[in-house]
Amino acid sequence: MVRSHSFELNTAGHDDTIDITPDVKRAVARGGVNDGVVCVFVPGSTAAITTIEAEAGAIADLAECMRRLAPSSIKYKHNERWGDGNGHSHVRAAIMGPGLSIPLSGGEMLLGTWQQIVLIDFDNRPRKRTVHVQIVGE
Amino acid sequence: MVRSHSFELNTAGHDDTIDITPDVKRAVARGGVNDGVVCVFVPGSTAAITTIEAEAGAIADLAECMRRLAPSSIKYKHNERWGDGNGHSHVRAAIMGPGLSIPLSGGEMLLGTWQQIVLIDFDNRPRKRTVHVQIVGE
Amino acid sequence: MVRSHSFELNTAGHDDTIDITPDVKRAVARGGVNDGVVCVFVPGSTAAITTIEAEAGAIADLAECMRRLAPSSIKYKHNERWGDGNGHSHVRAAIMGPGLSIPLSGGEMLLGTWQQIVLIDFDNRPRKRTVHVQIVGE
Repeated sequence: MVRSHSFELNTAGHDDTIDITPDVKRAVARGGVNDGVVCVFVPGSTAAITTIEAEAGAIADLAECMRRLAPSSIKYKHNERWGDGNGHSHVRAAIMGPGLSIPLSGGEMLLGTWQQIVLIDFDNRPRKRTVHVQIVGE
Repeated sequence: MVRSHSFELNTAGHDDTIDITPDVKRAVARGGVNDGVVCVFVPGSTAAITTIEAEAGAIADLAECMRRLAPSSIKYKHNERWGDGNGHSHVRAAIMGPGLSIPLSGGEMLLGTWQQIVLIDFDNRPRKRTVHVQIVGE
Repeated sequence: MVRSHSFELNTAGHDDTIDITPDVKRAVARGGVNDGVVCVFVPGSTAAITTIEAEAGAIADLAECMRRLAPSSIKYKHNERWGDGNGHSHVRAAIMGPGLSIPLSGGEMLLGTWQQIVLIDFDNRPRKRTVHVQIVGE
């Protein structure tokens, strides 16, 4: 059994981090699959998906670390070629990755209590994003 | 066909890295699925799962790199708010990610010879962890 | 329905980054699965798979960032023990991760227009790599 859902959200860019757990849970509930795997994926090369305790402090700390790892202030060859100034966004997104698979059991994703699914938009401008929730199971 | 397994393990925290390949293989053998995907996932926001050559040198090198990336000695907003001192743990775990999907073929995971599945506990204290092994296939 | 494909490619090592999207698409087309999940995975502990806009600038920027994160010039315990000089390769690969799951809908992977699947070979010598494309769906 395969169920496909997607939802859209508007981000502010600049490492904007959005807790999408409620949206994913809604898709899972609608899907009617009890056991299997939930694949959460964001198309595009300047956003990423991971899990974190979605409280403002940890979210800010993660963004700060990604800025140390790939600062927007250094030179990027992508910027020299394309002039859109978001070389750092591409690097951060590629390291973090565009998606995540989560076990589904008895209709519930097996997340920790303080573990939320977040989308991080590393682009240097506001973006409209589509997130796909693909459920495979029975 | 979906098979759900889980196992528990005790960690020492502080980047303790444990080769869970034997446990995952045992779950796969018990599951009786021949071909499909094995999703390995740790609930919680201060542990991560990846693959590495699980020899003591490479394991220490990876932990050392994660400590450079998100040192425990700098300020974290998470710590200011919650006082549990594990802001660096959250950041490291979110970057590495909580899970992994591995192809399953003829009853065997398609890992490399020197590639093991490891759980890294980035928390700042010993923890009891549950790892889920979700198998989808036929 | 499960479909298993694999392909081989030769890399130059040293962060060589190869756009494998056409190979993965070919496997998907051959598989005949319309809806599900595509799991792309590289066996081995010194290569990784992610997505990025596969233009030369962004690819060079990502490699540059991984070299800052885990420079080949510092000491690695893996090198002291095994003498193969690729401690940095193991660390980079473990952080980026060996695989990726992508939703499949109507026979097409739900990638962004400028989002390609790449294999990065972090090893310190040319390698022959096998990539597995495991498709689970209906």
